[in-house]
Amino acid sequence: MSATRMQFLSPRNARLLSRGRDALLAGGGGGGGGAGGPRVRSLTSPPLSSSSPGRALSSLSATRRGLPQEKMSENGMVSRAKVLTIDTMNPTVKKVEYAVRGPIVQRAVELERELSEGMKKPFAEVIKANIGDAHAMGQQPITFFRQVLALCSYPELLNDSTFPEDAKSRAHRILQSCGGNSMGSYSASQGIDSVRQDVARYIERRDGGVPCDPDDIYLTTGASDGIVTMLKLLVCGEGAARTGVMISIPQYPLYSAALAELGAVQINYYLNEETCWSLDISELQRALDEARQYCNPRALCIINPGNPTGQVQSRECIEDVIRFAAKERLFLMADEVYQDNVYAEGCQFHSFKKVLFEMGPEYSNTVELASFHSTSKCYMGECGFRGGYMEIINMDDEVKAQLTKLVSVRLCPPVPGQALMDLVVNPPQPGEPSYDSFIKERTATLSALAQKAKLTEQVLNTVQGISCNPVQGAMYSFPRITIPEKAIKEATDKGQQPDMFYCMKMLEETGICLVPGSGFGQKDGTYHFRMTILPPNDKLQILLNKVKEFHQRFAQQYS
Amino acid sequence: MSATRMQFLSPRNARLLSRGRDALLAGGGGGGGGAGGPRVRSLTSPPLSSSSPGRALSSLSATRRGLPQEKMSENGMVSRAKVLTIDTMNPTVKKVEYAVRGPIVQRAVELERELSEGMKKPFAEVIKANIGDAHAMGQQPITFFRQVLALCSYPELLNDSTFPEDAKSRAHRILQSCGGNSMGSYSASQGIDSVRQDVARYIERRDGGVPCDPDDIYLTTGASDGIVTMLKLLVCGEGAARTGVMISIPQYPLYSAALAELGAVQINYYLNEETCWSLDISELQRALDEARQYCNPRALCIINPGNPTGQVQSRECIEDVIRFAAKERLFLMADEVYQDNVYAEGCQFHSFKKVLFEMGPEYSNTVELASFHSTSKCYMGECGFRGGYMEIINMDDEVKAQLTKLVSVRLCPPVPGQALMDLVVNPPQPGEPSYDSFIKERTATLSALAQKAKLTEQVLNTVQGISCNPVQGAMYSFPRITIPEKAIKEATDKGQQPDMFYCMKMLEETGICLVPGSGFGQKDGTYHFRMTILPPNDKLQILLNKVKEFHQRFAQQYS
Repeated sequence: MSATRMQFLSPRNARLLSRGRDALLAGGGGGGGGAGGPRVRSLTSPPLSSSSPGRALSSLSATRRGLPQEKMSENGMVSRAKVLTIDTMNPTVKKVEYAVRGPIVQRAVELERELSEGMKKPFAEVIKANIGDAHAMGQQPITFFRQVLALCSYPELLNDSTFPEDAKSRAHRILQSCGGNSMGSYSASQGIDSVRQDVARYIERRDGGVPCDPDDIYLTTGASDGIVTMLKLLVCGEGAARTGVMISIPQYPLYSAALAELGAVQINYYLNEETCWSLDISELQRALDEARQYCNPRALCIINPGNPTGQVQSRECIEDVIRFAAKERLFLMADEVYQDNVYAEGCQFHSFKKVLFEMGPEYSNTVELASFHSTSKCYMGECGFRGGYMEIINMDDEVKAQLTKLVSVRLCPPVPGQALMDLVVNPPQPGEPSYDSFIKERTATLSALAQKAKLTEQVLNTVQGISCNPVQGAMYSFPRITIPEKAIKEATDKGQQPDMFYCMKMLEETGICLVPGSGFGQKDGTYHFRMTILPPNDKLQILLNKVKEFHQRFAQQYS
Repeated sequence: MSATRMQFLSPRNARLLSRGRDALLAGGGGGGGGAGGPRVRSLTSPPLSSSSPGRALSSLSATRRGLPQEKMSENGMVSRAKVLTIDTMNPTVKKVEYAVRGPIVQRAVELERELSEGMKKPFAEVIKANIGDAHAMGQQPITFFRQVLALCSYPELLNDSTFPEDAKSRAHRILQSCGGNSMGSYSASQGIDSVRQDVARYIERRDGGVPCDPDDIYLTTGASDGIVTMLKLLVCGEGAARTGVMISIPQYPLYSAALAELGAVQINYYLNEETCWSLDISELQRALDEARQYCNPRALCIINPGNPTGQVQSRECIEDVIRFAAKERLFLMADEVYQDNVYAEGCQFHSFKKVLFEMGPEYSNTVELASFHSTSKCYMGECGFRGGYMEIINMDDEVKAQLTKLVSVRLCPPVPGQALMDLVVNPPQPGEPSYDSFIKERTATLSALAQKAKLTEQVLNTVQGISCNPVQGAMYSFPRITIPEKAIKEATDKGQQPDMFYCMKMLEETGICLVPGSGFGQKDGTYHFRMTILPPNDKLQILLNKVKEFHQRFAQQYS
């Protein structure tokens, strides 16, 4: 905060004034504030004058609704209560939580700053294993992709003989599809036509020829954007008719955050940790039947391969889920951003789209499905470009028109991300100059990930009090940890979740930043953390050993 | 839509089934559908069986709430009613309108396709003058910006001696701030630290030394993203306590679209066309006083330079607005994306931030302000990269923490857009190798725009029945057009707005795509269109002549 602004009024004072104003307003019968919920808090706050008797504040104006609330502070300056306070802001935003970038990450950033300022710590480096951020962990981008992006950014390079011809032809094709041949133009709101065509052909190849219509493809700003947009369409009703959305627990917290913001009802179904985080239809049924008591369940979200749990769903399971969705009339949302990240023997990625179509027209003509993909994960790990797409199956035509209208308000997804998505779905082909190096780079990344998945599982399972399911896919382990009763008590006394207490302690002692399981949801009385497997092999080894030592120390300390 | 999916059920049938199902549900007393509003429509629809007596549809299952609604169609296939229909989707999304990419643009795209398929038209080319899309209109990107982006995309190029040293040093600095030195990493959700620092220094230079704290800067996905995020924070309350937001009429339809989606109340204040679209405080007061009868006005949005109206606000006017916001306790939102686009003599851009701080601590310590900027407009016109920032002044600390949390859910703005924003706020400096060419390119673009602004005003004002205010700034003219009574009647008979009728006719006859004034809002009984001034000079001349001829023809036809 700038010095000038702080000169006369500290944020704390501003806050106090704001609280005081609300209390005055409440007393005066005005309706200046927000919704019912937050007002309760204001009503119980005493007016500022009585809570801060030492302050000589006087109201310069009437407190009737709408008139400014001006106050004279000690130094004689006029100050006004804030329009926007925690009590008068959007109450649904307050309910949003996003653990992957929550308090523990904020503390990690602080620690990094303290280290850089020379403060002494029991570690030399903070390792942020909280998020699937491949390049930040040293993974190298695919050369071909970056060559094409450079060519698209600065088309002068099309004359540079050091760039391979296939990179140039891809760049040429992308630029031809951009207004004025520039990535600086807006694209169509649904995404560049030729990119959507390439996505459709990719899906057809991936799904063994199941047809895909480019008109069903919407390019997005990362997968998150598509998921939030789809949820937004689905939300309606009030009270017991409010839209409910089924999400797995543990879940990726984008879902809970979006549902909170949209005011929809989150319906939890629990994955079965004992059977490698499998999805059981009986659990879906239980969750649905209970939810029907208090909301209108309309959608079922699946993450496959799983985040944070790393399981890969069998074809049979996907069929069962589709039958369930059809029987119970649920809109299916399949988050398939880790579709190339499958490591375990015997596991294979099956897209919901493919399985749906192979189940025959009874399902393929009726079950509504949105599936999501992204440039951020798999072998490319290009998170920063915010590229992605969604495919929409069996959506009502009128709703689709509304979707197209809705995305047009934000004009278009970032064009460099669209270009990158195009390269992911249309990489170098056999015979093209960049093919060999592309395959080599992709294979190296994916097999390194497979090794790291195995290593993570193995090392964690050597620790007493940690038990880790196989990381069949995706980019994370989500081991279960035993937290001693004494530690649970200490955490509870501090008002902290026990696994948050555990992870905070680990961060302070080792510099390792993990996300507590409570941020993703877990069965009551169980504790976990999510750790990405992305660090380079040597660093991952060190990290796992540190986790091991910490856990042993922690267990001993609280035994 | 793919052939496979269409095999058994046409969209129309699906829709009919959907309607039918709702009617059945309504009859069965279930609460399967949406909010109050849309249900009314369902309740009045007769059940499908009676409305389509020719179809042999039978319900295979009970119609009690939640159970699947399966029907046997003529060919014996089972089909299910859609989960998500126009009647059961989010009702606030349905209220969203966005004229800049509305039906007229969809028709323009269709016409382009028809032309490319060899269909005969009275024109050879569709000219999309509906949107401020500079590169699509042939404007060239700034060489330096694109060089740095290419370097950041493919850092191998840092070894290429043909790139200037200042481009390399900028790229190096940006990459240093990225995790793993890659634009493929997520940035901090608020944006890359060093970019926010550069933005803060830019604002300080722009505002003659008024201090700016990088912590008050949030990088965004274009300005739209920031505006929607801020509005989202402000919305709360129900009924007469619902948040109201004041927007200018004519307005940029992002505002009305976002307010509709958020369920906030749109409060219109009218700009004064007679005095070059000036903003009169008495009109603000009128709009506010009326709005207080039915909502809780909390924010005031200003677009300066104006979109679609092109006016540039005087310093005095901005002071008055700030005093008004302070007196009436309104959160100020200043959309300043056209800050470099000022053409008219005697006009100058004054930022709200600067004026606020020059008004002294009584205002600078209290008035809450968010201001927005973007990479999409000015001399760079890089819309496709979706870069932008917002500066937040005097925001309550707790609310700011909520804002930071909220933006973290979407992870981060696109990193290439952040990089581009960095270049805009930190362009080549005197003495650096790229300085001269940068200044030359920027000046050429801005002076061409100034000429085109003048040309547009002059030519349009030669047409009887068109009157055009000076285009003082931004990228659009918004002339008033006289529409004869006979044409108004014909439009009304067709259920069309008269200016939509006019613009559609112009599109069909000339290939010119403009946006009708009704998409931005205008005083009752007045008609306008928005036309961008961006086409290259020769094309603009042709376009203006075509508009002139069309208008004369139209006036004669309906006289």
